[in-house]
Amino acid sequence: MLRELRARYQEHLFESVVPFWLKHSLDREHGGYFTCLDRDGTVYDPRKYIWMQGRAVWMFSKLYNTVDRREEWLEAARGILEFTRKYARDEEGRCYFSLTREGAPAAVQRKPYAAVFVMLGLLEFAKTGAGEGYRQEAVELYGRIRQWIADPALLGRPRQEVQQLADVMVTLSMALELEDDAVIAECIPAALRHYVPERGVLVENIPTGGSNLRQYPEGRLTCPGHVAEVCWFLLHALERQPDAALETRVLEILEAALDFGWDRDYGGLYYFLDIERKPAVQLEANMKLWWPMTEAIYAVLLAYKRTGEAKWLEWLERLDHYAFQHFADPVHGEWYGYCDRRGTPIHRAKGGSYKGFFHVPRFLLYSIQAIGR
Amino acid sequence: MLRELRARYQEHLFESVVPFWLKHSLDREHGGYFTCLDRDGTVYDPRKYIWMQGRAVWMFSKLYNTVDRREEWLEAARGILEFTRKYARDEEGRCYFSLTREGAPAAVQRKPYAAVFVMLGLLEFAKTGAGEGYRQEAVELYGRIRQWIADPALLGRPRQEVQQLADVMVTLSMALELEDDAVIAECIPAALRHYVPERGVLVENIPTGGSNLRQYPEGRLTCPGHVAEVCWFLLHALERQPDAALETRVLEILEAALDFGWDRDYGGLYYFLDIERKPAVQLEANMKLWWPMTEAIYAVLLAYKRTGEAKWLEWLERLDHYAFQHFADPVHGEWYGYCDRRGTPIHRAKGGSYKGFFHVPRFLLYSIQAIGR
Repeated sequence: MLRELRARYQEHLFESVVPFWLKHSLDREHGGYFTCLDRDGTVYDPRKYIWMQGRAVWMFSKLYNTVDRREEWLEAARGILEFTRKYARDEEGRCYFSLTREGAPAAVQRKPYAAVFVMLGLLEFAKTGAGEGYRQEAVELYGRIRQWIADPALLGRPRQEVQQLADVMVTLSMALELEDDAVIAECIPAALRHYVPERGVLVENIPTGGSNLRQYPEGRLTCPGHVAEVCWFLLHALERQPDAALETRVLEILEAALDFGWDRDYGGLYYFLDIERKPAVQLEANMKLWWPMTEAIYAVLLAYKRTGEAKWLEWLERLDHYAFQHFADPVHGEWYGYCDRRGTPIHRAKGGSYKGFFHVPRFLLYSIQAIGR
Repeated sequence: MLRELRARYQEHLFESVVPFWLKHSLDREHGGYFTCLDRDGTVYDPRKYIWMQGRAVWMFSKLYNTVDRREEWLEAARGILEFTRKYARDEEGRCYFSLTREGAPAAVQRKPYAAVFVMLGLLEFAKTGAGEGYRQEAVELYGRIRQWIADPALLGRPRQEVQQLADVMVTLSMALELEDDAVIAECIPAALRHYVPERGVLVENIPTGGSNLRQYPEGRLTCPGHVAEVCWFLLHALERQPDAALETRVLEILEAALDFGWDRDYGGLYYFLDIERKPAVQLEANMKLWWPMTEAIYAVLLAYKRTGEAKWLEWLERLDHYAFQHFADPVHGEWYGYCDRRGTPIHRAKGGSYKGFFHVPRFLLYSIQAIGR
């Protein structure tokens, strides 16, 4: 089955996903790339969203660095990165959330994540042969981001006695790419502190002080897609720093997240759940999004590669079948992003301010590479 | 039909809705009231949300002032208002978005709306016989709110060349309650500047400068529930300041919003639509929420009372039927708030940070009173 999956993912990546973005998204006039693309690639919002710019630089560079040295991938990465370097940061070095098509500031988000993806883009682009300067820029930004995460007030956010799983995840993802083993070693236990024994999953937010966060919805919130993603980050980390007991724990968490997160009536992974089964207050909680599927597929594939256990192959088939049935668009290429609980897309857009050239090509590439190993 | 509707709404208001909130929501220990109530009234988040506190003060006071001088309604209003007056405002007089159960600041929202509902609560409470002091406090707050709307930087928001329909609506709602005819006269044309001839509806955001806002999703966004609500505000305004041509225009807008907003496959009003039928990017766009239904029902009822035209009676039956079929809970009382496109509640909560003791009892009371006139 894996050989067949690999061939299918290869075809999908290089004949559906990459061509869709190369054809429709690049702004050859002003640089950067559009992500708000309708089903057929028509732009419905010309703004440039910085999370997305950084992610695409990373992805195009990764393809260039690990698949084939195609000039069009390198040029795409360069065009997006140079637009981003020129316009994305304010005079204090913080990244805007979005820019106008031409590069003027459009919106601020007082979170470190735009910078995280710019950092990852710089780092991967440096490996294309672009040179040490880009790597140094990435390392400098990494230092700033770690300060911003340690002290949210630097970005104008209130200090809160909460540790967010997302902060641990982005730190771990940057540390893995930088091969910063000291930080990787810190991130593993930090992620596992989000573990909730009675449900077997990780919650999004844990208190850093003594407060009773579980009385609030945010203290009971779990996102199965996030848990799957952090599980494969942890499996990557444990490849560098092996620990059999921790690996077993990570695989248990992954299985629990899939079991708890899978919709037994309509299939697919819920976006958010309350671990005590109280109302999950996010309006999108019971929707099915594309990226929890992509992250779960790759995590399950790694779990199967590590253990050879049949249960992971069953999960792989279930997740893969659901994802391609509901999200992929065989007519125009790429995936829809947002389905309702029953698996019907809520709109026909292929991209938006949070969906660009990232999760779909990344899980396809990583899965192809993992099967190939 | 209207007589029957009135009897049914009366029973629903006084035997299902008001008892649900009186029984489950009041915090007799710390003051204020809980709005995050599960299906049976169990509290799933003990925080006090200030929009909701102000709205409930208004609603309980309105019942006391216009239906019956029941002590329990007055006491509910007083308990919520005094908690709010004690804790809701910061040292600069701005309102927090939420407080802990005990009254400590929990979250800030850099918008004027929490203050708007506190102002409306103060004003209506003043009419219970509580005295001129409350009215003066409301008038003082009204002045502050108008400054905050005129200059968002006072609340720490970026200045934007955009006029939001919500700002016009809250200004009009306060002016109507204060009988401030000069401001009412300004708000009528301000609201109608949101009119988009090719679709016949109002959009949420219009540019105040010369920018091309229609290139962005927020410039093409319409919310049929908001349009219905502003239409009945305008009908109230035009009762004070009659203008037959404007009234015709308002009724045309209401009809266009219902025609455009009604889901012909599954019924109910969409939450958001893009007027050019491009993707509506809010994840809740195609969901069905309770309050667009309540606002549309009352608006249509007023339209029928003004014109006697059969089409409004048809809309009334359609909206009323959908709302009671999908949102009302005959077992525990009150309404669910959030249904997916097909009309299935996404969770069983009766209240949350944006759903409290307001839209359901208000539309029931106003409808009862309008039919009675």
